Amino acid sequence: MTGSGNKSAAASSPPPKAVVGRLSLYLRELQHLLRDGHETTSSTQLGRRLGVTDAQVRKDLAYFGQFGYPGIGYRCEELVTQIKAILGTNQEWPVAIVGVGNLGQALLGYHGFRRQGFRVEAAFDISPDRIGKTFEGIVVQHLEEIPITLAEKKIRIGIIAVPGHAAQKVANQLVSSGIAAILNFSPVTLSLPETVPVVGVDLAIELEQLSFAVVNQAPNT
Amino acid sequence: MTGSGNKSAAASSPPPKAVVGRLSLYLRELQHLLRDGHETTSSTQLGRRLGVTDAQVRKDLAYFGQFGYPGIGYRCEELVTQIKAILGTNQEWPVAIVGVGNLGQALLGYHGFRRQGFRVEAAFDISPDRIGKTFEGIVVQHLEEIPITLAEKKIRIGIIAVPGHAAQKVANQLVSSGIAAILNFSPVTLSLPETVPVVGVDLAIELEQLSFAVVNQAPNT
Repeated sequence: MTGSGNKSAAASSPPPKAVVGRLSLYLRELQHLLRDGHETTSSTQLGRRLGVTDAQVRKDLAYFGQFGYPGIGYRCEELVTQIKAILGTNQEWPVAIVGVGNLGQALLGYHGFRRQGFRVEAAFDISPDRIGKTFEGIVVQHLEEIPITLAEKKIRIGIIAVPGHAAQKVANQLVSSGIAAILNFSPVTLSLPETVPVVGVDLAIELEQLSFAVVNQAPNT
Repeated sequence: MTGSGNKSAAASSPPPKAVVGRLSLYLRELQHLLRDGHETTSSTQLGRRLGVTDAQVRKDLAYFGQFGYPGIGYRCEELVTQIKAILGTNQEWPVAIVGVGNLGQALLGYHGFRRQGFRVEAAFDISPDRIGKTFEGIVVQHLEEIPITLAEKKIRIGIIAVPGHAAQKVANQLVSSGIAAILNFSPVTLSLPETVPVVGVDLAIELEQLSFAVVNQAPNT
């Protein structure tokens, strides 16, 4: 749209969160297309399975630059590389999990993180029963060690998996230790400095997709 | 768009999954607007924070009928009720969890499900250490009891939280017991009859939002 090369649109207006969310979906779709042997694609094809119009696809991508080729469309492999660079997942991210209860232990073993470039490198808890124990190769440390471990391992993303009543305190500790971003599995809304982005996980959205499908008897598409 | 009243668009072409996903987001946004005292809203306002164009909002909603009023826009409370009816969450859904390891136990205690109308009513496992134990008020049963319990409790949605190697077998058991839909937390792609919708959870998408924010130093919006 802007016709003025990469990054110019990004610089002038930051994309809404949902646009970035759709980038992840475009990335998964492109990876699918690549596995199916497609070398190129179009905004129509890219949007179709996601139920997004071709105009919306083009508008979303235009936030980050210009990617298509006239008469060709998008080159899948190139666009995968470009979207990963935009999302920052062209590098590996060491992450820390705080709270090694059931959820924390489950997240420590979650393969989907590593597949997309996120490597759990530290885990913290406050319970003497858990501190010093090893889960998925990670030795659980006391919360007190958050500052030094985050610095040592250059960890910038923290995952909060503690009960609601402890979440804000843990978030404060992470922030004062220089964490750059937080994924929040606790059921409370965190109060954080504006400079520290936070994403709260809402698993009920996935269930709503299913109740819709059952009510409307929609088969897999 | 169609101008022909509720349900006509829905009947002629089923909405893509991503459209239904956005319905959940519109619902959360409308609930926000209501809490903030807004009685009405527009497709522009509804789409803004989600980074969706007003045209996309209207197109998404048009799959399900006509909701706006000329000169007024959408009435928030009415649209909440209508979207819940579309998603099927104007009723409570009893759900079952299969696999009561760390993830299953975490999901049993996840408050976000109940808040949106999903009530865990049964849990199954194969381990003698877990069968008969109570978690969050639910007594864990043996997998063998899936058929009878699903029927007794009219459970139509199953959540799979078993290791990858066991997931397909569990899915088969759920399907043969008449489950209507499956939420899959295991890392494998399930092979299911076309009539049984399945949603796989991809938590890495949330982390990609954060790596993006860190790389681009975008504050909370």
